[in-house]
Amino acid sequence: MYKIIETLEGVCAAEGFFADGVSAGLKSNNAKDMAFIYSEEECEVASVFTTNKMYAAPIKHFRAKGEFKTNFILINSKNANAMTGKLGVEDIDEVLNALVSTCQEIINPLMSSTGVIGVRLPKQKIIEGTKLFDLSVKEPISAAKAIMTTDTFSKTISFKVELEDGSSFNIGAMAKGAGMINPAMATMLCFITTDAKVSKSVMQEILDEVVVNTFNAISVDGDTSTNDTVLLLANAKSNAFNRAAFKEALFKVMHFLALEMVRDGEGATKLVTYNVTGARDNKEAEVVAKALSDSLLVKTALFGEDPNWGRIASTVGAAGVEAYEESLSISFDELCVYKKGELLFNEAMEVKAAAIMKLPRFTISCDLGIADGSFTAYGCDLGYEYVKINADYRT
Amino acid sequence: MYKIIETLEGVCAAEGFFADGVSAGLKSNNAKDMAFIYSEEECEVASVFTTNKMYAAPIKHFRAKGEFKTNFILINSKNANAMTGKLGVEDIDEVLNALVSTCQEIINPLMSSTGVIGVRLPKQKIIEGTKLFDLSVKEPISAAKAIMTTDTFSKTISFKVELEDGSSFNIGAMAKGAGMINPAMATMLCFITTDAKVSKSVMQEILDEVVVNTFNAISVDGDTSTNDTVLLLANAKSNAFNRAAFKEALFKVMHFLALEMVRDGEGATKLVTYNVTGARDNKEAEVVAKALSDSLLVKTALFGEDPNWGRIASTVGAAGVEAYEESLSISFDELCVYKKGELLFNEAMEVKAAAIMKLPRFTISCDLGIADGSFTAYGCDLGYEYVKINADYRT
Repeated sequence: MYKIIETLEGVCAAEGFFADGVSAGLKSNNAKDMAFIYSEEECEVASVFTTNKMYAAPIKHFRAKGEFKTNFILINSKNANAMTGKLGVEDIDEVLNALVSTCQEIINPLMSSTGVIGVRLPKQKIIEGTKLFDLSVKEPISAAKAIMTTDTFSKTISFKVELEDGSSFNIGAMAKGAGMINPAMATMLCFITTDAKVSKSVMQEILDEVVVNTFNAISVDGDTSTNDTVLLLANAKSNAFNRAAFKEALFKVMHFLALEMVRDGEGATKLVTYNVTGARDNKEAEVVAKALSDSLLVKTALFGEDPNWGRIASTVGAAGVEAYEESLSISFDELCVYKKGELLFNEAMEVKAAAIMKLPRFTISCDLGIADGSFTAYGCDLGYEYVKINADYRT
Repeated sequence: MYKIIETLEGVCAAEGFFADGVSAGLKSNNAKDMAFIYSEEECEVASVFTTNKMYAAPIKHFRAKGEFKTNFILINSKNANAMTGKLGVEDIDEVLNALVSTCQEIINPLMSSTGVIGVRLPKQKIIEGTKLFDLSVKEPISAAKAIMTTDTFSKTISFKVELEDGSSFNIGAMAKGAGMINPAMATMLCFITTDAKVSKSVMQEILDEVVVNTFNAISVDGDTSTNDTVLLLANAKSNAFNRAAFKEALFKVMHFLALEMVRDGEGATKLVTYNVTGARDNKEAEVVAKALSDSLLVKTALFGEDPNWGRIASTVGAAGVEAYEESLSISFDELCVYKKGELLFNEAMEVKAAAIMKLPRFTISCDLGIADGSFTAYGCDLGYEYVKINADYRT
């Protein structure tokens, strides 16, 4: 057996990791806009990237590296370095070469970017910014703030895992993301650090498993970005590992951060869990759950706190999977509003359902009544604020 | 050769067709809420319905009829008669039986409904409403108004087709639709009448061909409704027909009405044509064109009149089809803003692009630069008004 205990140090929870955020003048008002994560030992790296075919320069740069260990990630906000072609990759080389030449401790640094698409990196500002880094500092919140774009709060978490033999390891992470979220992956970045002694291949395997029900189960707007990145760095400093415990702790980290992104969904006022059961198989349940979390009509009904179950039924029917009016049931939390072809809805039920919809967090369950397929997705509502943020993002 | 001339009589343009709208008290303020289309001759019927698995009672009722000719369609707004199970179909039978018993001229009437999902039809009001119908009246605009829901204007069109031999026929239509529009089909209804002498099978074949690039090429919000219906009635009164002319006229009718729906998209301020070329095949071009017209980030950028071509590139990349940064080109009308990996965009170009985006109608072209696949889709922007309309639709 093992114990998983929440700690407060984010990406600095794992032994030997340092992080901070600085202001390089990319954002206005001297807000922090560049962060680093540094490990005093070289790390194995596992990664998941966007499925967007227009994947950004940092992802091209990473993929071109082949096998390597690293001890440093440089992250900037305000510019995504996407759709910038070969020049975008050359810009990264130039920035990282400057960094290595001024700082001998840094080995094989990675770069990660988020912000506007289609604009060259402001290289000089970034190179100047790296001179403000102090690699002996542990400021995980400052780092998490520096990578925010439309996020309204920073997103970090960490756990200490105590194993039966008395050994222990740590795992911590920071993430950003609030819009262009439909991870497969989305305009999200997540950096996870651990001192567990875990091989690259095992770590990659576990990361691939965990991403399915965490980042790949959320949606803010159904748009998959060019820059989505999850990087997991392990420096083995603890000398401890247990696969089940590691997987559970990693799930807790990624699940928490995934829901934090939805909770911070642009203009969102509620976090909704879509619990789909009774589908022909898990894949069909996933299609339905994601159709619900992406439906504009469902999202605006949520914003209006209108228990419009008809839109939910219509979205299930339009999802392109096996579904029948006669076998479908729909509930808001525990309140069943439609049951296998029976119109249960009346005024008293509407009052109860409307009260549930005023909660900041609730569950919409759809039982398709066919077989055992199930999937849980997470989404939010869409209101005026989403339009405001996205009608004028670049200015 | 033949000539196609626009006329002004909508569904009453074809000889022998009558139509009107009345107020049965379903909408507030005595607004018209029930319409009929009546033909003095029995008609062959061709049809296209929603692909939504939760298709509404009127569609079940239609499909249960088998082979038949009809001379009457009863249409109500304000209630979709969807998710109402067997009772919903029985309600239709009851209404139509009452109608036939009071009016001997009516043969095999059809019913079509649009409005809120999941509420039983107000049968008595509807039966009382049918008593206000005068089958000798030709009021196509009044009928078109009666079937509106969130539409802000009525949608009708008609053409006279003059053939080389001196014969002629007419084709006219009315439609409704402004939201829940992602026709495959969508919360749209379209009723087309013709006096052409055309067989049921030929008419169905042509209708199926034409729907692909008209109603199935538009999107307001990516939500496919339970009630989408296109009905085409032909009474053969003109005794004239020419397949090419008929198809061209039908395309003109359906294309016009499809664009009218997008122009009336809930809260929409612009109608945008997405012209995708250079895809691996037509199907992949269609996927990209529809991804663009459905993307929330593209739609909100349109609303903000922000020439954010990066979001367009990102949406192309996320569409799941073959696409390369190095072969993609993007234009706003004639203005190319990104060309095969080259960042053309600068401040002068931004000013020009922003001016194009202020137009009520413009084209966004994406050449994927791979092969010859092409597709044109139509969409609109998404602003505060969309949220307002849909956050509180039922009240």
